[in-house]
Amino acid sequence: MAKQAFPLSGVYGLIETGPVVLISTRWKGRESIMAQSWHTMIEFDPPILACVISESNYSFELIEKSGECAINIPTVEIGRQVALCGNSSGRNADKFEACAFTREKASDVEAALIGECYASLECKVIDRVKQYDLFVMEVTRAWVDPAVTEPRTLHHRGYGAFMVAGETVSLPSEMR
Amino acid sequence: MAKQAFPLSGVYGLIETGPVVLISTRWKGRESIMAQSWHTMIEFDPPILACVISESNYSFELIEKSGECAINIPTVEIGRQVALCGNSSGRNADKFEACAFTREKASDVEAALIGECYASLECKVIDRVKQYDLFVMEVTRAWVDPAVTEPRTLHHRGYGAFMVAGETVSLPSEMR
Repeated sequence: MAKQAFPLSGVYGLIETGPVVLISTRWKGRESIMAQSWHTMIEFDPPILACVISESNYSFELIEKSGECAINIPTVEIGRQVALCGNSSGRNADKFEACAFTREKASDVEAALIGECYASLECKVIDRVKQYDLFVMEVTRAWVDPAVTEPRTLHHRGYGAFMVAGETVSLPSEMR
Repeated sequence: MAKQAFPLSGVYGLIETGPVVLISTRWKGRESIMAQSWHTMIEFDPPILACVISESNYSFELIEKSGECAINIPTVEIGRQVALCGNSSGRNADKFEACAFTREKASDVEAALIGECYASLECKVIDRVKQYDLFVMEVTRAWVDPAVTEPRTLHHRGYGAFMVAGETVSLPSEMR
């Protein structure tokens, strides 16, 4: 994927469709990647989002300690790798190797971006809502492959059933 | 739509795909419907979700005062009605009439369910995270049309561009 810098004001349009994301983390040489669907935008610009990450996830400690992560958006072309990622823990495996993902260097965070994902967002934790396991994060830098105009993102329906993004339609909407 | 009672344990699978939802509210005879994409599950069972609703929305007061709402999930077949809904305010219009939606009586909430939506969730507000305009809501009852197995839900990409849900694929996932 040849990702290029993407305007922060457009980030909400990548996230509010509700895709499965792969959250990559790195802290003191330890790394992980977590498949995740429980996230929402909470502010347009600067883009701020909230993700549910519970203490039982290995990624929890890495994101808590480092205060940062990368949110990568996969498409159906790498669906088997995404499923592999969701089935294993970074506790006892190198998930980049296990899932055959390529590390790309980020600018603002230590976590590696996932080369096979069409979009990657560099994120800093700015707050927590501990009662609900929410990490509130600001996206400081975004990267998108401009060749991918209709990404066939994955949307989890439960137990390994994923809806694949279909065509995009225009409706006479005034919604931002 | 011939919706039937749906198990609460399956609600997350309707929401975590990230569809545009129509939130219907009713308080002291005043009603509204709000198109919304900023929501996330935060608990499986009982199903709890969080929605961003800002004070600038007419629906804010109705949901705040009543402490309840219905979350209805539309599909592309009623896309124009959804867009109409997003383009108008309940402040000065009867949105059921303006959008040609049919009211269905709910069991646990005063808000009407939207007949044209394939799924409707009756919700009680159980908490707020005011700093982020989050309403935390428990789904107490769910209704789904069992004939709709692959709902062509709408997923907002911004400025009236909506991704339509495509086919569902199975991947060897252990994710719930």
